Amino acid sequence: MILDDLRARLHTASVLTDADVLEGYRQDWAKAPDPGMPVAVVRARSTEDVQEVMRWASAHGVPVVPRGAGSGLSGGATAVDGGIVLSTELMRDIDVDPVTRTATVQPGLLNIEVKRAVAEHGLWYPPDPSSYEICSIGGNIATNAGGLCCVKYGVTTDYVLGLTVVLADGTAVRLGGARLKDTAGLSLTKLFVGSEGTLGVVTEVIVRLIPEQPPRSTVVGIFPDVVACSDAVLAVTRRIRPAMLEFMDNVSIRAVEADLRMGLDTSAGAMLLAQSDLTGPDRAAETEFMAEAFRTHGASEVFATDDPEEGEQFTVARRAAFTSLGKTGTLLLEDVGVPLPALPELVAGIEAISARRDVPIALVAHAGDGNTHPIIVLADDDPDRAHRAQAAFGEVMDLAIGMGGTITGEHGVGRLKAPWLPAQLGEDVMELNRRIKTALDPQGILNPGTMF
Amino acid sequence: MILDDLRARLHTASVLTDADVLEGYRQDWAKAPDPGMPVAVVRARSTEDVQEVMRWASAHGVPVVPRGAGSGLSGGATAVDGGIVLSTELMRDIDVDPVTRTATVQPGLLNIEVKRAVAEHGLWYPPDPSSYEICSIGGNIATNAGGLCCVKYGVTTDYVLGLTVVLADGTAVRLGGARLKDTAGLSLTKLFVGSEGTLGVVTEVIVRLIPEQPPRSTVVGIFPDVVACSDAVLAVTRRIRPAMLEFMDNVSIRAVEADLRMGLDTSAGAMLLAQSDLTGPDRAAETEFMAEAFRTHGASEVFATDDPEEGEQFTVARRAAFTSLGKTGTLLLEDVGVPLPALPELVAGIEAISARRDVPIALVAHAGDGNTHPIIVLADDDPDRAHRAQAAFGEVMDLAIGMGGTITGEHGVGRLKAPWLPAQLGEDVMELNRRIKTALDPQGILNPGTMF
Repeated sequence: MILDDLRARLHTASVLTDADVLEGYRQDWAKAPDPGMPVAVVRARSTEDVQEVMRWASAHGVPVVPRGAGSGLSGGATAVDGGIVLSTELMRDIDVDPVTRTATVQPGLLNIEVKRAVAEHGLWYPPDPSSYEICSIGGNIATNAGGLCCVKYGVTTDYVLGLTVVLADGTAVRLGGARLKDTAGLSLTKLFVGSEGTLGVVTEVIVRLIPEQPPRSTVVGIFPDVVACSDAVLAVTRRIRPAMLEFMDNVSIRAVEADLRMGLDTSAGAMLLAQSDLTGPDRAAETEFMAEAFRTHGASEVFATDDPEEGEQFTVARRAAFTSLGKTGTLLLEDVGVPLPALPELVAGIEAISARRDVPIALVAHAGDGNTHPIIVLADDDPDRAHRAQAAFGEVMDLAIGMGGTITGEHGVGRLKAPWLPAQLGEDVMELNRRIKTALDPQGILNPGTMF
Repeated sequence: MILDDLRARLHTASVLTDADVLEGYRQDWAKAPDPGMPVAVVRARSTEDVQEVMRWASAHGVPVVPRGAGSGLSGGATAVDGGIVLSTELMRDIDVDPVTRTATVQPGLLNIEVKRAVAEHGLWYPPDPSSYEICSIGGNIATNAGGLCCVKYGVTTDYVLGLTVVLADGTAVRLGGARLKDTAGLSLTKLFVGSEGTLGVVTEVIVRLIPEQPPRSTVVGIFPDVVACSDAVLAVTRRIRPAMLEFMDNVSIRAVEADLRMGLDTSAGAMLLAQSDLTGPDRAAETEFMAEAFRTHGASEVFATDDPEEGEQFTVARRAAFTSLGKTGTLLLEDVGVPLPALPELVAGIEAISARRDVPIALVAHAGDGNTHPIIVLADDDPDRAHRAQAAFGEVMDLAIGMGGTITGEHGVGRLKAPWLPAQLGEDVMELNRRIKTALDPQGILNPGTMF
C-alpha cells in the first residue's frame, strides 16, 4: 500500500517488485552475508525522482540503500529488509566544458564512459579503479575511489568540484560548482565524497579534468621475494613521483597467468610495475632511476619499454588479479593501507598471517601510496578454511591499524569492515562521525548498516 | 575571576591581558569594522593548551576566536566582546618524512617556513598565497587558501591528509593521517579545511608534498584592455595547463610601479603573466603556445624568458599589488570567482561598477582559475566615496553570484562577506551548514560572527 503511494509520486522512475529483480539487487560484488529483502527497486531517471523517493521514505520511515553499478567491494550496497534499493544506473548524461576543464556528470555513467567522453576534448579524468570498465562515477564518489594513478594524480575527492545531493528529507542541494577555487561556507562537497550513501544521494557531479597526458614508459622488475620488492618501492618514492607503481606477488601472478596466458614469470616472488609520463630527457632519467632502484634492491630481472601498448599489457595483468583469482574460489578482499615506511613490515606481517592461519592470501598493491589489497581465497567446500579465512581477514585489518594505517584506502567501509572502524578511528572520532550522520539523517534511513 | 580559573588550567600557554596587547589582537588585516574587546589573548604552545582553553570556554560559555598569523583578508579573526583570542603563533614545529612525502606541521609555522623546511629534502608544498611570507599554515587550513600555483597544482585542501583538531568541548581528535589514500569513515579532515575556526581549532596538520619542480619559463603579455586580456586567458586554458596564469590591470600595474620602480609598462591596459614548468621540447612548445595565444588575442607586446630570476621579478610585481595599493589608501578586498567562460563578462562588469559608483577598482586575478581580486581603494578623507565603495563591494559579489560564481575563492567568508553567503548558497545549503555547525558547536562559542 505504501508502494502505491510511491508509484503515484514518481513520473519517470520505474518501481520494480519482481522477485528475481529484487534478488539481483540485494548485494554488490562483495556479497556481504545476510542481505535483506527489499520491498522494491527504484530506478531513478532524475534528481526529482530521487527527491520523491526520499520524501516518501522519510514520511514512511523506510530505509533506502543507494546503489550505483553494484561493483562495490565492501558491501556498501547491501539491501535492507523492507527497504528500497535506489539505483542511479539509468542516470547517464554528461556535459563536458573544455574551457573550464570540467564535466557535469550523472551518477550512473561508468568511469570508462566519463574517460571516453572527455578524451574527445583532449582531456583526462584521472581516477582509475581497476574496475573502471564496470564501476559508476556515482559509486566512485560514494567510496572516494582510487586506482592506479593515485600515486601521482590523487583520488576521486581531488577531482570533485561540485555535487547535487538529495538529502534524507528529499531536499536537493547544489554544493560547489565549476570553480577550481571556492571556499564559501563549509566544505560540504568534500564531506559527501566518501560518505557511502549514508548522508544523501548524489544525483549530479561536477568533476575537474586535466589535459591528456603523454604516453607512458614502463619499467617492470622481477623480485625474489615480497619484502625486497617493497624496499625497492621506498627507494623510488623517496626520490620521484612515478605515474604508476604497482605490485603483484607470486600467488596473484600465477592466478593471472593461469587465466590469461600472457607469459608472466610465474617463478617470480613478486613483481613491480612502474610507469613514467614525463617527456624528453626527464622521462629517460626517471625510467632509468627506477630500473636502477629495482636492481639495487635485488631485482633478478628488469625490463623497460617505451611502447605504450606493451606497457599496457602489464597493467592489464595487474588489473586482472581480482577476476583471475575469483575464478579459483570465493574471495575475501582487503584494502588496507599504511604510511609508506611501514610497507615492508605490513607485507611481511600479511605473509605471517597467511602461514599461521593456513589460508592462501594473494597480494596486489598500489604500492606507491602504501595501499595494499590482500586477497583471501576461500575453498567453497571447506568450512573450516572459511572460518580461518574470516579470522585472517580481521587480523590483516588489526595489523594495519596497529601500524597507523587504514582499513580502507579506496573501497569504503561498507558492511564488511564496519566492525573494525571504531578500532581505527577511536571512540571520539566515531562520535564525531555519528553527530554528523544524525544531523543530516536523523531518522537513520540512509543506507543503514553501512559504515556505522 | 574566570580568568583565574583559566590560568590555573594552563601550564605552558601565556594568558595576556595588557590593554595594548589586546588591542593588537582585535582585528586581522581585513580590519573588519566594530571588533569586540577580548578579555584575554591566549598564546597556546600545545594541543593540550588548546584543549584546556576550550574546556574552560565551554564551561563558562566564553566565545573563542582562533587566530593564526593575523593576515586574514576577510575578518575571520575578529575579536568578540568578552571572548578569548586563541593564537597558535607559538606552535611552530615541523617534521618532514621524505619517504612518505608528508610533513607534520604545527599551525603557527608560516607558509614560507613550511616551503623552506621541505625544500631541504628536495620536496615542495605547492599552495602559495601572495602573503606566503607572513601567513601561517593554520590560517591557510582555516581558509582553504589558494595562490598562484592553483591553476595547475590545486588549493590547500588538496594537500591536507590529516589534522589534529580540538573540538568546542575540548576533545582532541586525530583525523586522517600520512596516507595518500584513506576513506575510512566520513571525510572529516576535508570538512575542517576551510571551516574558518567555526568547527574546531586545528593544532596539527599532515600535508602531502610533491618533488621539487623544474625552474620555470615565463611569458608576459601586454594588452590594450582587460577584456582582450581575459579572452587570451580562455584561449590558453582551453588547451593547456600552465604552472601560473596571472592578471594585472592598469591600476594595479601603476600602483606597483609607483611603489617599486621595476620598469613595468604603465601604459598597458592589462598584463598577463604565465609560466611553464614542463621540461625539454614540451616547455618550449607550451611557452610558444601561450605567446602565440597572447598575440592572437591582441597583445601589443609579448616577452618570454627562460631565466627563472627574471621571471620571478614579474611574480614579485604581481604579489606586491595588495601592499603597493595599500599605500594609496585603505583597501576593500574582494575575492570573487566565476566559471572561466564568464571571466571576460565579470571583468567588464567590474569596470562598469567602478564607473557607475565612481570609485577606483584595481583588478588582479589568478586568471587561469577564474579567481579575481577586485581591490577597491578608499580615500580616508572622503566619507561619500567610502559609502560608494561599500555599495560597489556588494555589487561585485552580487555580480559574481549572478554568473554562477563564488564570493570567495581563497580568502574565506569571514565577517566581511558573511552577509552575502546566503545569496550564493541558497537557504537550503545555509541550513545544511548550520546543522553541521550546531552538531559540532552547540553553544556557538567558536568564532561567532564568522561565516554564519
